[in-house]
Amino acid sequence: MQALMMDRPLTLPTILEYAAQYHPHQEVVTRTVEGPIHRYGYAEALARVKRMAKALLALGVKPGDRVATLAWSTHRHFELYFAVTGIGAVLHTINPRLHPDQVAWVANHAEDAVLLFDITFAGLVAEIGPRLATVKTLVAMTDAAHAPAEVPGALIYEDLLAAQTPDFDWPQVDERSASGLCYTSGTTGNPKGVLYGHRSTVLHALALSLPDAFAFSARDVLLPCAQMFHANAWCTPYAAPLVGAKLVLPGRSLDGPSVCELILQEAVTFVLGVPTIWVGVADHLDQTGQAIDTIRTVAVGGSAPTAALISRIEQRLGGEVRQIWGMTEMSPLGVVNTPLPAHAAEDGQARLQRKLKQGRGLWGVDMRIVGEDGAELPRDGKSPGALQVRGPWVASAYFKHEGAQAFTDDGWFDTGDIATLDPEGYLRLTDRAKDVIKSGGEWISTLDLEDAVCSHPAVAMAAAVGVPHPKWDERPLLLVVLRPGQTADPEVLKAHVAERVAKWWTPDEVRIVAELPIGPTGKVLKRELRDALPEALAVAVVQPAG
Amino acid sequence: MQALMMDRPLTLPTILEYAAQYHPHQEVVTRTVEGPIHRYGYAEALARVKRMAKALLALGVKPGDRVATLAWSTHRHFELYFAVTGIGAVLHTINPRLHPDQVAWVANHAEDAVLLFDITFAGLVAEIGPRLATVKTLVAMTDAAHAPAEVPGALIYEDLLAAQTPDFDWPQVDERSASGLCYTSGTTGNPKGVLYGHRSTVLHALALSLPDAFAFSARDVLLPCAQMFHANAWCTPYAAPLVGAKLVLPGRSLDGPSVCELILQEAVTFVLGVPTIWVGVADHLDQTGQAIDTIRTVAVGGSAPTAALISRIEQRLGGEVRQIWGMTEMSPLGVVNTPLPAHAAEDGQARLQRKLKQGRGLWGVDMRIVGEDGAELPRDGKSPGALQVRGPWVASAYFKHEGAQAFTDDGWFDTGDIATLDPEGYLRLTDRAKDVIKSGGEWISTLDLEDAVCSHPAVAMAAAVGVPHPKWDERPLLLVVLRPGQTADPEVLKAHVAERVAKWWTPDEVRIVAELPIGPTGKVLKRELRDALPEALAVAVVQPAG
Repeated sequence: MQALMMDRPLTLPTILEYAAQYHPHQEVVTRTVEGPIHRYGYAEALARVKRMAKALLALGVKPGDRVATLAWSTHRHFELYFAVTGIGAVLHTINPRLHPDQVAWVANHAEDAVLLFDITFAGLVAEIGPRLATVKTLVAMTDAAHAPAEVPGALIYEDLLAAQTPDFDWPQVDERSASGLCYTSGTTGNPKGVLYGHRSTVLHALALSLPDAFAFSARDVLLPCAQMFHANAWCTPYAAPLVGAKLVLPGRSLDGPSVCELILQEAVTFVLGVPTIWVGVADHLDQTGQAIDTIRTVAVGGSAPTAALISRIEQRLGGEVRQIWGMTEMSPLGVVNTPLPAHAAEDGQARLQRKLKQGRGLWGVDMRIVGEDGAELPRDGKSPGALQVRGPWVASAYFKHEGAQAFTDDGWFDTGDIATLDPEGYLRLTDRAKDVIKSGGEWISTLDLEDAVCSHPAVAMAAAVGVPHPKWDERPLLLVVLRPGQTADPEVLKAHVAERVAKWWTPDEVRIVAELPIGPTGKVLKRELRDALPEALAVAVVQPAG
Repeated sequence: MQALMMDRPLTLPTILEYAAQYHPHQEVVTRTVEGPIHRYGYAEALARVKRMAKALLALGVKPGDRVATLAWSTHRHFELYFAVTGIGAVLHTINPRLHPDQVAWVANHAEDAVLLFDITFAGLVAEIGPRLATVKTLVAMTDAAHAPAEVPGALIYEDLLAAQTPDFDWPQVDERSASGLCYTSGTTGNPKGVLYGHRSTVLHALALSLPDAFAFSARDVLLPCAQMFHANAWCTPYAAPLVGAKLVLPGRSLDGPSVCELILQEAVTFVLGVPTIWVGVADHLDQTGQAIDTIRTVAVGGSAPTAALISRIEQRLGGEVRQIWGMTEMSPLGVVNTPLPAHAAEDGQARLQRKLKQGRGLWGVDMRIVGEDGAELPRDGKSPGALQVRGPWVASAYFKHEGAQAFTDDGWFDTGDIATLDPEGYLRLTDRAKDVIKSGGEWISTLDLEDAVCSHPAVAMAAAVGVPHPKWDERPLLLVVLRPGQTADPEVLKAHVAERVAKWWTPDEVRIVAELPIGPTGKVLKRELRDALPEALAVAVVQPAG
């Protein structure tokens, strides 16, 4: 028997229509690529979105067409989030930090019809332009005064808008239609595309806004310090208008001074980003002595923060650190580290230890831990295995059905992470499957080793990698970057780690290095480290000046 | 182009499966019909739900069958919320406060196959049993020790459970399948059935839990003081396990002492209910001097609270009053009165005035105000008209497609309410369309008149009705019930009202009466008042002893 409830599709334009009607003056604030701060309300944003939707239709964009961006977090990118998806086309947010060859590769693989780009990337577009096989139209996301000379044939975003009126009714779009395409920076093989949909994104935005996730309300001011080409900036450009929150878009600048300036000027209540962002912010606050008192939550994800960093963020930025774990394939929400009622009584040390877990399961994301034999492992906090997930905002396949081995026959996505689940439902990552160190037949958690050494005050960051060993197959090597102006004896650091992990986990060697290779999503490229072992690393060993 | 995201259906068993896995020991606490307090965790609840699902299948219940309840808010009713819906059948929650003829009528209209009843209603079931045309099975929701003698053929709930094991996999259910059936106590014509679905209920539970609605988290303790036959107790039995909140079910007892006892014993953080519940609670707290310090939010709906009552609730219960407006046809969430950022600076009086509005629009519920000519009216807070709504948890039709005139040709539901929407998006009801007083061609808001007189300290409740007038067509008459032990001169009350409303709204007469007729959902039956005018009312005029 069918229910007799209205069959309203869950589509993305409904979100901005809501915000424009009920929060017309709530602001979207942008640090523009051109320089100045730009601000407008959701009503004005919607009017511009509708003009851009008509402009895209006038350019011949059809439902299902891929429309690509090479762009920072700005109001124009925000407008494309709705204009492109609202007409049934697919917004392909390319990560401009990829190698130019990879940028061209993903644009061709996606068969992008249109490419819109920030003027920052005019040189890149000029370079790869001749190699773009399917792109028919280039649009510079700026006004005529800033038209980039490098791409003389590019149309100008503001000119396209100016040619249209804002009267527009959204076409009917099936909620299961594709809305977004985001390639994962695969560390093995070619990048793979995740094809988001209207339904999955709306459900994800609702779940993300719940009190035990990010708790977004109309009284919030959100500053996503993840770029809009990283899993839709963790979906905040959709969640903010859904709840009527103010949205602050940082443009290209995620350095400490720029982020601090926005937090202070806009009275930001919620920030999110990878750990390195908050190191920069805390460093800047240390230097300037500025005080921040508006932030309620700092969501940290992308990679695991150390205990020392969590404490430092809470002291310098205020508010509470909520660790999140997610993936491009998960829209990206997986788990969020929120306390249970039982944690109300925990002391400072217990609280910090709890916050080191990636987070607790929320409705909508099923999780299981699977052993090497494929059987589900107990949720005892002690049995690491392959983490597999399932839910309405989890990818069912990659674009063009590549990488099918990541999807199990019984309908789960294998994350490639090794993790434990504890009886309280908290997830703890122990490794990426490909980064695992297996010593004497047992796994050693590289994350635990890195966390242990990073709790030393002289250490800025660290990476543990496995090196071949004649008896144990592999043994851990711990590479360490010191904080500016600090010195440390490797043997002291080794002893520091030995006090904090199982005896047989203690690395055979701790090496101090000048820097670690960082990939386009801000993570340490361990494959590159392993490939470089042992020759290059031996060269890289330097002791920074004290 | 189809998205490549998992097509996980939004079904109700996923909610309890989540709670059992991630919040296995979080409690559902019940004041049982038999007397004692019952408590268990979500894991045990799920095990019992699965046994009941198997028992229902063993009784021959098929997908789409209607399974009815005559039951209070208890753990067994909670179990049926999931067991019945989980096997694809439809839970028909009958309001036992209806006249026995109406109970039989709705059971026959729904073509219920099974009727489960609390022992409180054994006499009622015995009385109407012979008239139930389709019910094949009667189940008493109790154990063998409390088997009701009045219904000798009834099966016993606990015996049915005991005969089953908890190993059970839920069948696949389409998310658009019907899950619940709830009849509105229509004040005109026969009751009409609202046929909820899995999808609509899951989406509604998500929206209800958002920070700007009820802000439910795993750290909450919810006590719904709306019975589970009233629009699913405002959906809290689904929202609580979705977020892992503790759920306290008050059984049949919603009197002040019973509710206060549960709040104090269970450290309740969130309560909801109609205004009269909170009068009883506040009276009890006045008498006992007990202090409550755990409540963060008191959600008040069903009818509009007066300013005096809002203040009294916040003083006596603590926390903040959030008015809600909704309808059975809306699952029931329509609007919730949460503040905007601009309201942070409002003073006490402004805050109170804002809280008298029914609430602000949230994503998922479209609203419009329509004039008598069918054209949309401005959102200026001054133009009353017919309130029409639309959204994924709003009914598209009544069961068996009766009452079709409430659904517009362009896909909206006409609520039967007269309301304004202001520029900030707040809804203010001025009347039920059928209760409107039209004087000299203009509407007079009965709610405003009632609110004005209820701000007088001697007044407990009031009802404004229109009486025929030779010149103005209708003029308002204000009927007033005084608080216990209070006296008041009707002319003084009239002057009190005159100071607070437009001059021509001032009622021609204020009459003090001993009581007002209250319907099965706790609302004043104005039609009955109008029918009784003028003869019966003249008799009812009494002055309570001072």
